[in-house]
Amino acid sequence: MSRAAMTTITNMCMVCKGDQVLVQDKVDADWKGLTFPGGHVEPGESMTDAVIREVREETGLTIAAPRLCGVKDWTNDDGSRYMVLLYRADRFTGELRPSPEGPVFWMDKGELATRKLSNDMDEMLKVFLDDDLSEFFYFKEDGVWKHALK
Amino acid sequence: MSRAAMTTITNMCMVCKGDQVLVQDKVDADWKGLTFPGGHVEPGESMTDAVIREVREETGLTIAAPRLCGVKDWTNDDGSRYMVLLYRADRFTGELRPSPEGPVFWMDKGELATRKLSNDMDEMLKVFLDDDLSEFFYFKEDGVWKHALK
Repeated sequence: MSRAAMTTITNMCMVCKGDQVLVQDKVDADWKGLTFPGGHVEPGESMTDAVIREVREETGLTIAAPRLCGVKDWTNDDGSRYMVLLYRADRFTGELRPSPEGPVFWMDKGELATRKLSNDMDEMLKVFLDDDLSEFFYFKEDGVWKHALK
Repeated sequence: MSRAAMTTITNMCMVCKGDQVLVQDKVDADWKGLTFPGGHVEPGESMTDAVIREVREETGLTIAAPRLCGVKDWTNDDGSRYMVLLYRADRFTGELRPSPEGPVFWMDKGELATRKLSNDMDEMLKVFLDDDLSEFFYFKEDGVWKHALK
């Protein structure tokens, strides 16, 4: 029996430099606020190659050895799935440059909590930061979307 | 533009107890040799719930806080994807019991390399064990399947 489903795979990466993390201030009206760089995995592309490419396109930095640390995911009403693979990277080369999606800059990890974050980013941060968490899971209960950290 | 593709999502978990890991001796003719427990993510199921359920079904142990540490994946000729989410778990409760898929037992991590492993297991082990690796990626080059660790 096939258990395959139509699935969209994306990624997001927390790039670290000491106590600082690289944030992007998205200008997208649907997704305003501070977030981490990332985007879609292209057809046939490796998951690791995709996150390296997305961070380079959005920030100018080339990360090395991004580490998969979690996933945000849900299943839509039509049975299709959506996945955001979450990565951490501590090593990079290159120079920061802004992208058309918004300015990118370093910020103290502790300061993040005090700023306007994009939708869900406060909960996703827990998965990035807590080794005991590997998933931000959305599910529907009695027709209402809820989420759980696992 | 939708970049969704038909995707099969499975998992595999390295359960650790000190220097020992939990191995399964698969009796399946297509996949003989030592491997780690795991299986399919069911429709709508959380990724974390799925790996906890599979380990319980195949070994009797209930793992806590499995940590996503990598992915094995490839794209088939028809554009569909296959993903194996790789987890590590250091905490568990319950008692070991064999499953219909084969006996399960503890083995020193160092001894694994000297035993008959299932297909690809030697390369997958590197992703489980090396924090700098997050992917075992299969790809086709000039019609021939190759793989890379990333």
